[in-house]
Amino acid sequence: MSVKDRLIYLPLGGAGEIGMNCYVYGYGPEGEERLIVVDLGVTFPDMDGTPGVDLIMADVAWLEENADRIEAIFITHAHEDHVGALGHLWSRLRAPVYARAFTGAIARMKMEDAGQPLDAIRIVGPRPAVTEAGPFQVQFVPVSHSIPESAALVIDTPAGRVVHTADFKLDGSPVVGEPFDPELWHAIANEGAGVRALVCDSTNVFSPLPGRSEATLAEPIAELLKGQKGMVVATTFASNIARLKTLAEAGRAAGRSVCLLGRAMKKMITAAVETGILTDFPTLVQPEDAADVPRGSLMLIVTGSQGERRAASAQLARGKYLGLEMKAGDMFLFSSKTIPGNERGVIRVMNAFSEMGVDIVDDHGGLYHVSGHANRPDLEAVHDLMRPKILIPMHGEHRHLREHVKLGLSKGIASAIATNGTMLDITGDAPKLAGRIEAGRTYLDGTALLGAMDGVVRDRIRMALNGHVLVTILLDEDDRPLGEAWVDLKGLAETTRSGAALAEEIEGELTDFLDGAGPKVITNDDKIEEAVKRIVRQVTMEEIGKKPEVTVVISRLAVE
Amino acid sequence: MSVKDRLIYLPLGGAGEIGMNCYVYGYGPEGEERLIVVDLGVTFPDMDGTPGVDLIMADVAWLEENADRIEAIFITHAHEDHVGALGHLWSRLRAPVYARAFTGAIARMKMEDAGQPLDAIRIVGPRPAVTEAGPFQVQFVPVSHSIPESAALVIDTPAGRVVHTADFKLDGSPVVGEPFDPELWHAIANEGAGVRALVCDSTNVFSPLPGRSEATLAEPIAELLKGQKGMVVATTFASNIARLKTLAEAGRAAGRSVCLLGRAMKKMITAAVETGILTDFPTLVQPEDAADVPRGSLMLIVTGSQGERRAASAQLARGKYLGLEMKAGDMFLFSSKTIPGNERGVIRVMNAFSEMGVDIVDDHGGLYHVSGHANRPDLEAVHDLMRPKILIPMHGEHRHLREHVKLGLSKGIASAIATNGTMLDITGDAPKLAGRIEAGRTYLDGTALLGAMDGVVRDRIRMALNGHVLVTILLDEDDRPLGEAWVDLKGLAETTRSGAALAEEIEGELTDFLDGAGPKVITNDDKIEEAVKRIVRQVTMEEIGKKPEVTVVISRLAVE
Repeated sequence: MSVKDRLIYLPLGGAGEIGMNCYVYGYGPEGEERLIVVDLGVTFPDMDGTPGVDLIMADVAWLEENADRIEAIFITHAHEDHVGALGHLWSRLRAPVYARAFTGAIARMKMEDAGQPLDAIRIVGPRPAVTEAGPFQVQFVPVSHSIPESAALVIDTPAGRVVHTADFKLDGSPVVGEPFDPELWHAIANEGAGVRALVCDSTNVFSPLPGRSEATLAEPIAELLKGQKGMVVATTFASNIARLKTLAEAGRAAGRSVCLLGRAMKKMITAAVETGILTDFPTLVQPEDAADVPRGSLMLIVTGSQGERRAASAQLARGKYLGLEMKAGDMFLFSSKTIPGNERGVIRVMNAFSEMGVDIVDDHGGLYHVSGHANRPDLEAVHDLMRPKILIPMHGEHRHLREHVKLGLSKGIASAIATNGTMLDITGDAPKLAGRIEAGRTYLDGTALLGAMDGVVRDRIRMALNGHVLVTILLDEDDRPLGEAWVDLKGLAETTRSGAALAEEIEGELTDFLDGAGPKVITNDDKIEEAVKRIVRQVTMEEIGKKPEVTVVISRLAVE
Repeated sequence: MSVKDRLIYLPLGGAGEIGMNCYVYGYGPEGEERLIVVDLGVTFPDMDGTPGVDLIMADVAWLEENADRIEAIFITHAHEDHVGALGHLWSRLRAPVYARAFTGAIARMKMEDAGQPLDAIRIVGPRPAVTEAGPFQVQFVPVSHSIPESAALVIDTPAGRVVHTADFKLDGSPVVGEPFDPELWHAIANEGAGVRALVCDSTNVFSPLPGRSEATLAEPIAELLKGQKGMVVATTFASNIARLKTLAEAGRAAGRSVCLLGRAMKKMITAAVETGILTDFPTLVQPEDAADVPRGSLMLIVTGSQGERRAASAQLARGKYLGLEMKAGDMFLFSSKTIPGNERGVIRVMNAFSEMGVDIVDDHGGLYHVSGHANRPDLEAVHDLMRPKILIPMHGEHRHLREHVKLGLSKGIASAIATNGTMLDITGDAPKLAGRIEAGRTYLDGTALLGAMDGVVRDRIRMALNGHVLVTILLDEDDRPLGEAWVDLKGLAETTRSGAALAEEIEGELTDFLDGAGPKVITNDDKIEEAVKRIVRQVTMEEIGKKPEVTVVISRLAVE
């Protein structure tokens, strides 16, 4: 380690939000650090801020500019908010991608969907296997979470050891996958000089009680199913293989045939079986055969725990789906928690089922769902186990990061908030601000990639809030109006409260303006446009109280 | 009571949703029943379904058609979801409006804002005062809720007694206003033939524990404030006068000057003082003087508990507001619950405060907030107290109504779900379906009133999801294209992934089409428009994977 070398941490996503994880570590002389990227996740759009957008990803412009410095990309686990952007962004980074087998199988699907080379994905085993990536030596350490083969990363550098927890919980009996192993973590904390920096999940820092094990759900779910007479349908995240297993086993124990519905379910189970982590899943009925099973003997496990419009649960809420239909006396179980912001969609599905006479069962204070993240006392246990010099909370909104920093400081650990774009130097005893990167967001919109600040989505929001008025003006060879101005309304009331046609009211005012416009205005498109927009907004405000978006098209017959 | 007379119940809003309360009762021969309307409330728009809309109200078309049959309008209390539509809809109904004093003061403001006659509002006292309205004799019976002077209605008809609970809770010490009085309710249940039908609030039917009193909050809030060193800011609904009082008293007890911020606060306090229901509110500092008070001695009580963008809390979250500014070490208390669907806005405000270093305190499992609605055991207590023949749940989403019906049936009460537009005959021993009314929604949009099915808001949503392409085509005297087709994009990526300009790609295809179009097409605007839309969508889908909204303007120089 040269005196000038430094170890840096730079979140590009996930720090100041839950979702869209993307973290960068660097080691070397300032400005020439060799880099590794941890996770390339997505977050999901909503009508409020990103209407029409398909996926939201970190802006990797800084990484692209420094692509020659990137040694490797590590994917900690196969949740969309950790791997979902890989296919869309890989071609701009072009570094080898390391992951464990199950995660790698999902990563390969992402690459395939985006037409990227599959051999960029390299499967590595868990610790003690070590991946060398420039000055970094990286081990995947099994952690329990809500998807198989989740891994924390132990990142060794000449400046010391960083433990990047990724998403985790302390589960001694996770049903599928590796249990939390305190001895393993004790060893990691006590090798060499111990842990320089703990970069730690913050999602559940506000949950005051210790997290509960996935295994605690088996009995209540089995109990719930026993009493059911109609069809039983349950939903959870497709990637929660352990939960799928618990649900399916409860279904089988209650004498039901079990059928998985939804593309994501199939994908996940296939990946789990192919990579050998799922060996004893209950026998399934194929969707095309499910309709033949008497409904009292059938259990469906479906996608759509968050009320997503295209998922199987929403399809069933709207009526028939693959020949299957919910009826009075059936039960629908949400073995899931509603992620904040998804309430409207989930409630819509619940009420649709209610109208069908279906009994809805939800989380019920934890009987039928447990979180995949470490709660506050679990985080404290990990702080105590790792005894790091430095604590940097990640994966949380600002309020989570701040609370987690407070927790660290209360234990005497040098702790700091670093939100997306904040580069920290973590070479010394305490984290030090090393710079700020423009950390924006990139939208996948159809097949196009948009910058969040491009104005495209802003225009959509404005049209949605204010409506859109189109004005077409035709000017003849002498720059005189040819006919009246033509007005089209889209997303605006057509008649005013007095019963007049709004478009005609606007056309009248515009015609007056054009007839009276002097040569300096009428020969200048910019001046016409400016005046037309002002008039349209003014008339619309007077008539219906709205200030619309306006597009003006001026056609001139004059040959210029 | 003639043999042909019947008693009907018809919800137009609030049954199948929480909010927008509007219920109709009728008595008389079928189709000629004399009518009373209970409440004219609003519900609030969101980007998902109603972008740009200001307020959502029940469609009163059926009432308007039968306006000559309406005897009176009764307003149970002054919450927006019970009185908010009065000013906008009254001119279509033109019946006298009865309310208690505080409610009437707010109702008058609604009428004034909408330019409607104030003398339509008639103030009436609580039971034993009786309002005669055709065949109906109506008493306002004080109930405890989260606003002063809430009232249930006891509606006597020749067919028997209906108790319309409106929103209520069982609070023996509500801080401001009348406590729940079991003896009063006992008397109501036992007069004459007892209660024919109980039409009952369902909001909290899923809350398993008995509701808690407003009075339980005083101590925890006072305790919380004691330890604070910086400025303290608290938010709750402006109409919750009792809560404002509890908060203000806690502030004064902690030696702080108290200041109310936000227009709604001022309105509510003014109405409460003017109508004599608030006599001992702590002394307040005026907003213009608040900035002069040392921050450690200041408490603000502000609007915006639901994260509303224009409310005082959101303004403070964005920076200075009326010279006041939040700083590190200050505390912000949500003495409120987030209404499902408002999470995103509330979380946005929380994180903005977190970035300022402000400590955020929320509900904390009920320490700092109690609900204004009766929980499940409270509903059962009311069922037992009233012993109605018929139970009709109201004010709830479908799942709430259904659960409440189950509860009623489990007690042997004839119970039925009636969602908006469902007319029930409640003359007999059990409710009977008497018809269905088209029960839509009316949007206040700027100053215009839109029907929910007009397509205006649908167009906005489509523009927001898909973007908008405007095509202008100019045809000369011989129906030949004059220049190229002109394309404007709004809310769409301007460049394709290959780097080409999307507008130019579309223009090229359109020009090819126009040049090759035969006389049958080129002389027919409809055919041109149809083809142009198809081409625009096809090219846009190929180039950027989106299927946009398209507006086509065709200008012809030919004199027709």
